[in-house]
Amino acid sequence: MASLLLYNIGSLATPRSENASRLSGLAMGNIHTEQNAAIFIENGVITRIGASSELEKEANVAERFDAKGMAALPGFVDSHTHTVFGGNRANEFAMRSSGKTYQEIAAAGGGILSTMNATRKASHEELFHIGKKRLDAMLRHGTTTVEIKSGYGLDTASELKILEVIQELARTHPMTIIPTFLGAHAFPPEYKNDREAYIELVCKEMLPAVKERNLATFCDIFCEENYFSPEQSERVLNTARELGFKLKLHADQLSDSGASALGVRLGAVSVDHLECTTASGAQVIAASETIATALPGASLFLNHPYPPVRALIDAGATVALATDFNPGSSVTFSMPMMMTLAATQMRMTPEEALTASTLNGASALSLAHERGSIEVGKRADVLLADVSHFYEISYHFAMNHIAHVIKDGKVVV
Amino acid sequence: MASLLLYNIGSLATPRSENASRLSGLAMGNIHTEQNAAIFIENGVITRIGASSELEKEANVAERFDAKGMAALPGFVDSHTHTVFGGNRANEFAMRSSGKTYQEIAAAGGGILSTMNATRKASHEELFHIGKKRLDAMLRHGTTTVEIKSGYGLDTASELKILEVIQELARTHPMTIIPTFLGAHAFPPEYKNDREAYIELVCKEMLPAVKERNLATFCDIFCEENYFSPEQSERVLNTARELGFKLKLHADQLSDSGASALGVRLGAVSVDHLECTTASGAQVIAASETIATALPGASLFLNHPYPPVRALIDAGATVALATDFNPGSSVTFSMPMMMTLAATQMRMTPEEALTASTLNGASALSLAHERGSIEVGKRADVLLADVSHFYEISYHFAMNHIAHVIKDGKVVV
Repeated sequence: MASLLLYNIGSLATPRSENASRLSGLAMGNIHTEQNAAIFIENGVITRIGASSELEKEANVAERFDAKGMAALPGFVDSHTHTVFGGNRANEFAMRSSGKTYQEIAAAGGGILSTMNATRKASHEELFHIGKKRLDAMLRHGTTTVEIKSGYGLDTASELKILEVIQELARTHPMTIIPTFLGAHAFPPEYKNDREAYIELVCKEMLPAVKERNLATFCDIFCEENYFSPEQSERVLNTARELGFKLKLHADQLSDSGASALGVRLGAVSVDHLECTTASGAQVIAASETIATALPGASLFLNHPYPPVRALIDAGATVALATDFNPGSSVTFSMPMMMTLAATQMRMTPEEALTASTLNGASALSLAHERGSIEVGKRADVLLADVSHFYEISYHFAMNHIAHVIKDGKVVV
Repeated sequence: MASLLLYNIGSLATPRSENASRLSGLAMGNIHTEQNAAIFIENGVITRIGASSELEKEANVAERFDAKGMAALPGFVDSHTHTVFGGNRANEFAMRSSGKTYQEIAAAGGGILSTMNATRKASHEELFHIGKKRLDAMLRHGTTTVEIKSGYGLDTASELKILEVIQELARTHPMTIIPTFLGAHAFPPEYKNDREAYIELVCKEMLPAVKERNLATFCDIFCEENYFSPEQSERVLNTARELGFKLKLHADQLSDSGASALGVRLGAVSVDHLECTTASGAQVIAASETIATALPGASLFLNHPYPPVRALIDAGATVALATDFNPGSSVTFSMPMMMTLAATQMRMTPEEALTASTLNGASALSLAHERGSIEVGKRADVLLADVSHFYEISYHFAMNHIAHVIKDGKVVV
């Protein structure tokens, strides 16, 4: 039996699900810590957690790994990214610093459509190569599970191409990868003057094709002014749900369109962004099973307001953090940087931020039964960080403190 | 003769001083770029810059280094840090996320005085070891020149201890290190009820002792409500100036106390922070030779306003960027992250941010005659970054893109 003993852990910190799939409200601050610990892993699953001095006596161990006093925490679960795309938009970044807004750049032919053009042109092999390089870097920064959305193809063939690349990455990369269909990310130029026809295409052609090939777990949509209206979003999401997809929404990013309430009503697993969610909207989310996913990288990058995370937590919501990695509005792989922004800009405690970046991220991907915490019975996705306390991972920012990554019981970094 | 040829540079980007010591106002945006370039270095000095295809023909080269198409830019000059101190304040970071302000934490015995206690207790060897580890990480993130302040001793022996550690680091570390005396960082508990006596101690004992041992180039002071008044600051700085120190001020961080105007009047090389500098204050700085040093990491970390950098540049000021690395208000080594904050939060273009992080940083340390740009005659402090354009260094944030560091003509990373 493949087994691994991680011993000599200085300080272990993890949320505990106690067989719940998430921590909500103030319970998000409940982080279990253990000093001088060890973790015993068999066939990729955590089977024992205890004092290092005790577990080191275990004789029947295939591999021993000395953590050298480093801190251990669960692998990060980045539950909202757009990792597979062609090109970059560094030029638009420079334009915004000169005063142009994200919306103005989009109106001038930049934005999502510029990435769409680069992505349509790229071959499967090119996208796979780019995607793999990005995932390698994410893994080095401690992300062990990642959601990846399509949405830069915006025609059936290109959307399928992106999802097939994601599938190949999922088969070949150590990270756990959850695919999401986001054909309704923007209206492509071909349908600029006939938006209803694009909705038809998404519902009648794309979604069934994705389903038939089993290429995505979730269906997501950008519900926003100038993108998809609440009515159009409801049509697409209802179709998706009937086909068996789980649901997510890009909700309330640039305006309060009622998208998060729509998500709750449709039973979405998560509503993401929420920069413009109001106090009453926060109450609606908090009263539901839907997870509120905050993406503070986009707020920083676009200099937009941050989502009302404190209000959400205080109202009892389940909050997750994710990077929103994408070329236009949040260009980062770093979950620790999201935790720094959470603490400094959104008044989350470091404990809440850790829960949001691990267990609640896993919950936002319906994976919390097997990932997102260091507990007996869970898959062994564990980070070793060169710090004495997990606070330092977000306290000392814009630096990668992750020294080793254990994924499914294997030391991969 | 020691010589090094850096060839096969994809894209070289640098400000050019053209024998000026700085770039002011809109000239900060003048970045010179060159494609497919090479840099020839002799005895640590850049002697030729040109087409890689041409310079590769140079026969008389001791060492050749293939940049493999990477981007080259000048080493970062971090002109404001507090790198030598004991302990950390991750606990206070957690307290602030729960709603406590920086001032409240300081009033409760945290803040500068908590680091003072840890630093007083630490031995020279301990501080050297910690300092070296931090400098190694800074160097890996592309900083080739750094200013380090004392200011966590607050008694004569401890201030001298810190400055002696900085001197030993300067002698032994590849980085160029500029020491600053900051005995007037806060009032130590011993002088809580007799602040005038501490001013006397700084002026009559500390400054002469530092001068006698030649331990610092600059004298700095924290001019701020509850710290040092403008009158006290003027006394300390006048004494320092008479002793031959160059001057810097922590100015207008928490309130507009007139500190930046004081700095201008005293001929300070730089006034740093400026979060609360008004439009008229910006005009005063812009009309002077004094450099405006923005520390956006502190604004992010404390969730304070950002300094009015756009107004300063538009008024013609010389702006520098620095990390302000310290345990309480900006825990980062990353100059690229400062450039990201500059572009997203302060409306600096990436070009302006590059000038501010290199040439103008060097100018803030009176080093621009020999460092801060890639030009013939300058010391060879050059970064190779794994990007195709220097924009990507700040665009893709919270990730270290620096692959190699050349310091004084030697490949050190």
